[in-house]
Amino acid sequence: MNVLIIGGVAAGTKVAAKLKRDNYDINVTILTKEKNISYAGCGLPYYVGNVIENRQDLIVNTPESFSKLTGVEVLTQVEVTRVDPDKKEVEAIDLKNNESNSYTYDKLVIATGADPIKPPIEGTELEGVYFMRTPEDAISLREAIEAGKIKRALVVGGGFIGLEVAENLVAQGVRVSVIDMAHQILPGFEPEIASYVENHLSDHGIITFTETKLEAILGDERVEKVKTSRNTMKADAVIISVGIRPNTGFLADTGIQLARNKAIIVNEHMETNIKDIYALGDCAMVKNKLTGKETYSPMGSSANIEGRILAQNLNGKDLSYKGVLGTSVVKLPGLNVGKTGLTEEAAIIEGYDVVSVTAVVDDKAHYYPGASNFILKMVADRNTKKLLGLQVLGEGAVDKMVDIAVMAISLGASLDNIKDLDLAYAPPFSTAIHPFSHTVNILLNKINGEIQSITPREYLEGKAKSYKVIDASLSPSIAGATFVDLSKVDGELPDFDKDEELLLVCTKGKRAYMLQKRLKGFGYTNTLVLEGGTSFNKVSL
Amino acid sequence: MNVLIIGGVAAGTKVAAKLKRDNYDINVTILTKEKNISYAGCGLPYYVGNVIENRQDLIVNTPESFSKLTGVEVLTQVEVTRVDPDKKEVEAIDLKNNESNSYTYDKLVIATGADPIKPPIEGTELEGVYFMRTPEDAISLREAIEAGKIKRALVVGGGFIGLEVAENLVAQGVRVSVIDMAHQILPGFEPEIASYVENHLSDHGIITFTETKLEAILGDERVEKVKTSRNTMKADAVIISVGIRPNTGFLADTGIQLARNKAIIVNEHMETNIKDIYALGDCAMVKNKLTGKETYSPMGSSANIEGRILAQNLNGKDLSYKGVLGTSVVKLPGLNVGKTGLTEEAAIIEGYDVVSVTAVVDDKAHYYPGASNFILKMVADRNTKKLLGLQVLGEGAVDKMVDIAVMAISLGASLDNIKDLDLAYAPPFSTAIHPFSHTVNILLNKINGEIQSITPREYLEGKAKSYKVIDASLSPSIAGATFVDLSKVDGELPDFDKDEELLLVCTKGKRAYMLQKRLKGFGYTNTLVLEGGTSFNKVSL
Repeated sequence: MNVLIIGGVAAGTKVAAKLKRDNYDINVTILTKEKNISYAGCGLPYYVGNVIENRQDLIVNTPESFSKLTGVEVLTQVEVTRVDPDKKEVEAIDLKNNESNSYTYDKLVIATGADPIKPPIEGTELEGVYFMRTPEDAISLREAIEAGKIKRALVVGGGFIGLEVAENLVAQGVRVSVIDMAHQILPGFEPEIASYVENHLSDHGIITFTETKLEAILGDERVEKVKTSRNTMKADAVIISVGIRPNTGFLADTGIQLARNKAIIVNEHMETNIKDIYALGDCAMVKNKLTGKETYSPMGSSANIEGRILAQNLNGKDLSYKGVLGTSVVKLPGLNVGKTGLTEEAAIIEGYDVVSVTAVVDDKAHYYPGASNFILKMVADRNTKKLLGLQVLGEGAVDKMVDIAVMAISLGASLDNIKDLDLAYAPPFSTAIHPFSHTVNILLNKINGEIQSITPREYLEGKAKSYKVIDASLSPSIAGATFVDLSKVDGELPDFDKDEELLLVCTKGKRAYMLQKRLKGFGYTNTLVLEGGTSFNKVSL
Repeated sequence: MNVLIIGGVAAGTKVAAKLKRDNYDINVTILTKEKNISYAGCGLPYYVGNVIENRQDLIVNTPESFSKLTGVEVLTQVEVTRVDPDKKEVEAIDLKNNESNSYTYDKLVIATGADPIKPPIEGTELEGVYFMRTPEDAISLREAIEAGKIKRALVVGGGFIGLEVAENLVAQGVRVSVIDMAHQILPGFEPEIASYVENHLSDHGIITFTETKLEAILGDERVEKVKTSRNTMKADAVIISVGIRPNTGFLADTGIQLARNKAIIVNEHMETNIKDIYALGDCAMVKNKLTGKETYSPMGSSANIEGRILAQNLNGKDLSYKGVLGTSVVKLPGLNVGKTGLTEEAAIIEGYDVVSVTAVVDDKAHYYPGASNFILKMVADRNTKKLLGLQVLGEGAVDKMVDIAVMAISLGASLDNIKDLDLAYAPPFSTAIHPFSHTVNILLNKINGEIQSITPREYLEGKAKSYKVIDASLSPSIAGATFVDLSKVDGELPDFDKDEELLLVCTKGKRAYMLQKRLKGFGYTNTLVLEGGTSFNKVSL
């Protein structure tokens, strides 16, 4: 059997290596238009920041070493221009000599990935404009930094890659701003979480401008200024990371079904609608495991899972890929950010009766050095109590919190089934009441009516406008609010009626919750706890 | 309602605070023989090592602050001597003035914890002998270190607390040995994992002696020498951590049912066999969630979960505690160690058809600074493919791996259902193929016959004695073995027959697995991969 694979980064090399490993008799050939294969795309921002020092570390395998190791034939700088499903043949140009060749296949695997979107504006060809997609991009940007050419940079696009580049530029002493056309950075995150991150980045020297469009890049040979919908600013470099477009143009006449974004539509077996043609990785759609809907989720992690499954299926197995949860995690200066599952809004669209809580909890024993907080937003269905999503911010192991939630959501768990788990505790790692369990408990309290609270989003929307703010912190910390010392509350509050609307606010939410419980005991009927307290919300009267 | 709680550390204070929080009308009284309540027992070793600098940080709440915060009455230095279930009354001595008092109750909660076991040998009363159980123990040990009195210390007992103390003593410049009566340190861990840790500790200056009994502590006023079943050695301090004994002596005449170790037997509602008497925390038994069997698992984490459930039940709810998985995690010098679920041996006893794999996998992107390995042993049932247990070693986030497994095991997951999950990936946190998924894949390969391998334990038992060792590493690294360069294998091996018994060994196991696959393709029928490679095994010919 001849398997022809177009593309040789994550998905292509994974299919190829696993195919050949499981069955050395299969002829496996990779055609790639690039010089490199199997490079560490996710590592590029860290090369810019000199966190990864050597460019060799970006290359997982050279074409030669990969070929020797696996027995896969690799043809680099060969660009496929056309696929003929009837003849089972592809046409390709050898970019080294511009010669045209054709290659036949029994099975064709399309793993051509995606290229960065180039905004149709003036100046994208100037020196100092970078697209963070290949090792060359990262290498030339770092060279320019090290040559002292870049003092100010503008990152266009506030997604993960844009923000990772921003972090690494700051680490190199570059002054960085980030612009994004959308209402928020971090697409896929809850708006109030994104907004918190924007403020945090600004505290760390990275100014973000949302709802801001890149209009032109100005300069003679090099970038000098950037014109945005907001202003014109000086910049020595512009890093454009506004999304990627699947490399599927060469499939135009094949009848292969594409999604609106030009990604290839495949089923759970990575089969396209054309027999013996498969697609996976950044050039293909996947399913969302929770909703069953098609989604575009170009991640190195799912590319590898898909590659492994497809290789096994091509070798005669019958495995399915159930899809993604939209998991992601990113390291920013002084803050890690992660998510999985559905946002509140996405869950509403899916028809769930959504309930969420925003909690601020310790990430390890408070007395252990380096202890900090997690800020978590957990989303569930009120009826079934099924866990739907988790977003988490913190200095510590947000990836752990996300991974626990991934397992729970993947197995369809309800909050009741995951509330008393024997999760790992020792002071250097966690808290006696695990932060995940803690958050589950608070959300269950909310569902069960043990706490009456208002989310940060509801607070921003003004839903507590008519409420008087009670400062329930350990010591007074909200200017103008009435301070109530929980440890002295042993009866009715002298200044407030029992039916008065009171918004109880403390640092994290816990003291406010305790105060609410106590006040209920004394007959107060209209109190609300502000979730996330002053740690997450800006509270003013 | 009057609720009387005996004991005020983790379990007692949790029940009390939650009870009073949910219903301020209940009278809740804590009686404790100690001066402090609610101290951070798990933090004591870290106070010794000056990781926690201030002794105040060990005290979560003083009796006064706790009382004010929660509304719970706290009586310290009051030791309960007798319980009368018929009169619903307890007798207690006030240790401050030796007066006897009695206290009535509607509901009695026993949370008396456990005291360290004192070996019945000569010299345990000498200056320089410490039991690591209360803040005073940790404070006096650190004072002695800081006064320059301790150069050499012997830790008796190689469990978590003993090893945590050892780590912290080493951090303070003390020379430390550890002895344990058992065949291994780290009870509850797989013997081969414990053995790896013993070697690792020895590399870090902590010598462990197993099967070694403490026979006498010698000295005039202070400790000078220690006599063990192995030898007599000099020591300035002896830290004894050989287990704990539930504080249940005062219950002798009550008819309350105790387990063989004197822990109180309770049901899923923390009810003892006597009406209106409850028990939880270190003085009580719990269930193992997987096996349903009674077990003694004295952990601050489960104490908190039990306390929360019991408080809610005393307030009219009907919640059950399903028990523990035997989860634990510990930080050692340069190595973290964690586990959950059943060991191979425990799973066999439970009647499972046990299959396990030992895998060595990257813990984050190999090019990211600080990247290291996880060594994992994963245990499952061969028939149902149900995940039963995970043990993990590594410099990095072993707690994450454990917590993912806790969620999976708690939900009864089979390997097939957790193999392609959308776990979090970015280079600073993880690998594109998540280390948990990677391990699941290898174990499934083993179950499905895709890999023929031998576990480190089987290797130690000599099950590959008749096999010729093939060094499949990147470069020759096993003295005397035949080196085979995978990248050059394109047909039969010149020196070996196809039915020859070949043990394939590389650094981690992956190249050996790839070589096995390739050799199978060329007709080799008797190869075995050594799981864990030279990273985990000592391989000699």
